[in-house]
Amino acid sequence: MESSKNVHIDNILKRLEKNNFDAMFLANFNNIRYLTGYLSTSFAFLIIKENPIVYVSAMDMEIASKTSSCQIKKFESFNSLVDDLKEENIKKLAIEEDLTAGIYKKLDDFTLEISDFVNLERMIKSKDEISKMETAVNIAHKSLIELDVRAKQEDSWEEWACSYELGRIMRENGAEIESFDTIFASGADTSLPHSVPSHKVLETPILVDYGCKFEGYCSDTTRTFIYTEKQEEISSIVLEAHDKAINAIKEGVQYSEIDKIARDIITEYGYGDNFIHSTGHNLGLDIHESPNASIRDQNIIEKNMVFTIEPGIYLEGEFGVRIEDMVFVDKKGIVMGDLPVYL
Amino acid sequence: MESSKNVHIDNILKRLEKNNFDAMFLANFNNIRYLTGYLSTSFAFLIIKENPIVYVSAMDMEIASKTSSCQIKKFESFNSLVDDLKEENIKKLAIEEDLTAGIYKKLDDFTLEISDFVNLERMIKSKDEISKMETAVNIAHKSLIELDVRAKQEDSWEEWACSYELGRIMRENGAEIESFDTIFASGADTSLPHSVPSHKVLETPILVDYGCKFEGYCSDTTRTFIYTEKQEEISSIVLEAHDKAINAIKEGVQYSEIDKIARDIITEYGYGDNFIHSTGHNLGLDIHESPNASIRDQNIIEKNMVFTIEPGIYLEGEFGVRIEDMVFVDKKGIVMGDLPVYL
Repeated sequence: MESSKNVHIDNILKRLEKNNFDAMFLANFNNIRYLTGYLSTSFAFLIIKENPIVYVSAMDMEIASKTSSCQIKKFESFNSLVDDLKEENIKKLAIEEDLTAGIYKKLDDFTLEISDFVNLERMIKSKDEISKMETAVNIAHKSLIELDVRAKQEDSWEEWACSYELGRIMRENGAEIESFDTIFASGADTSLPHSVPSHKVLETPILVDYGCKFEGYCSDTTRTFIYTEKQEEISSIVLEAHDKAINAIKEGVQYSEIDKIARDIITEYGYGDNFIHSTGHNLGLDIHESPNASIRDQNIIEKNMVFTIEPGIYLEGEFGVRIEDMVFVDKKGIVMGDLPVYL
Repeated sequence: MESSKNVHIDNILKRLEKNNFDAMFLANFNNIRYLTGYLSTSFAFLIIKENPIVYVSAMDMEIASKTSSCQIKKFESFNSLVDDLKEENIKKLAIEEDLTAGIYKKLDDFTLEISDFVNLERMIKSKDEISKMETAVNIAHKSLIELDVRAKQEDSWEEWACSYELGRIMRENGAEIESFDTIFASGADTSLPHSVPSHKVLETPILVDYGCKFEGYCSDTTRTFIYTEKQEEISSIVLEAHDKAINAIKEGVQYSEIDKIARDIITEYGYGDNFIHSTGHNLGLDIHESPNASIRDQNIIEKNMVFTIEPGIYLEGEFGVRIEDMVFVDKKGIVMGDLPVYL
């Protein structure tokens, strides 16, 4: 573990030098976890330089001392952190895209530039990371089958209770937590891509977009339980888009091309305006990582990337269908897990 | 509802004018929800100016059109949003402290300044908001009693299962969701203020820091279930700090004074270094809002603020005790809910 983490820090140090940065300032919990092993519970700042250092809140000193592979120091104040950096003659700092304006302003004395140096490391997964994601997706899939959604619908369960029971089963099967708030939508609410489970008794169709974390790594899957011929017709279009997009995945192809394949199929059937989001997104420690399989993304697919393919068609006021799987890139795209599309 | 929302926007417009801003740019979901009623599921930008407007993702247009009290517009690109602002001759923008560097950089053509204009509105709660928080805290308290932590310990439940069962009971009692990931710590893990529930069978003591949301508004309570004389001794010190801090709360007092009262008591007993966080924090739509009852906070307590008082003593490797209640400020501080300290 330790040695592979140092490889990432070494790569970032090389990029910093090549781009004339003196150091990188990180505040994102998962970036710090990825590079040091320490997951903050309050706030933390990692400075990547010759001797990387993590500034840790008093509250976290015990946990950080046990888990961080980098040197740690108790955070006293922003002024003293800034003084430390100045003492080392640091002038130009690389920062993360999600650094908040509050901290950005406190680093006013430095030249700040957003860099994707950590993302470039995180987007290519190690064997260990892929294996954790496989464990997560297998736990999630097994748990959805155990939940038996059609039986729950027959027994008049409410959306929130199904969503919650699925979370319990995933934990019982070894998951840490959901990767994101489960979407357990039914009836017309399935046309809202990010519907929130309510106290409503399950209507039909039923769309479940969910996942769990295993050792920090996320899974993400969607299945739509269909009940009518119209729903079946829409679902078969979504499935065609899903399958053809996945078949087109290979090293060297642009993300936007994958989006185009899925979008073109849905458009041919006349539902282009009803596919109102991107075809997919990378994931790992975070549920949404870059790049995205979107119309504008010019990133190139590389070996050992992991991302979702999740086309959908949303008929406002009627229903929506989405089918989502995680794909791992070897030479071609390989679907992770083996959950049937129709349950 | 509509009219009270416009009052907040009107107040912000006045502050913008007084401070020579042309508009305010907001991206924080709860700020946008507070001011418009619309809660984003993906991303959204609210521009406060004479005619406020919310830029909404395609995916959210349906939900925004049903819930936003401000005009909505489909977000096309950052460039077109920036063009819209320039057309209205907007040059100086107020921004939120948590705006990300990625967006900050995209607004490079404007003069940007962090402002707390929305926080100033949000820190004073309306009757309606206080009533929602009272409902949330009552649901939470009732649910903790129903869970019966001591019985669960006798039956050898695991931490995660207790935490999850508490979540189920809160939902059954009408909560939407937890206000934050429940801390259900036992044994030596109680000395970590932000411990994560594990698959460990409950040890003693047991510390539960938890809350739920009702119509978006958070509750936040901590109880420590003690089992030994030493734990009782530490707990009595924490309780003294808790009670005296609460008794000192009234309009016009500085937050830092409240922190000092709690901290001085714990320090007198020799445990000052073991109280490793602030005494409390405001809350509302977010679990942590400003101000904080911390040593440095010079904000003045005002009527209709709601915040937590949560002193703790953490003995590394042994155990920790924290007692937390929510306090609502009328003239004096009034504890919300009526959960006994010792359960």
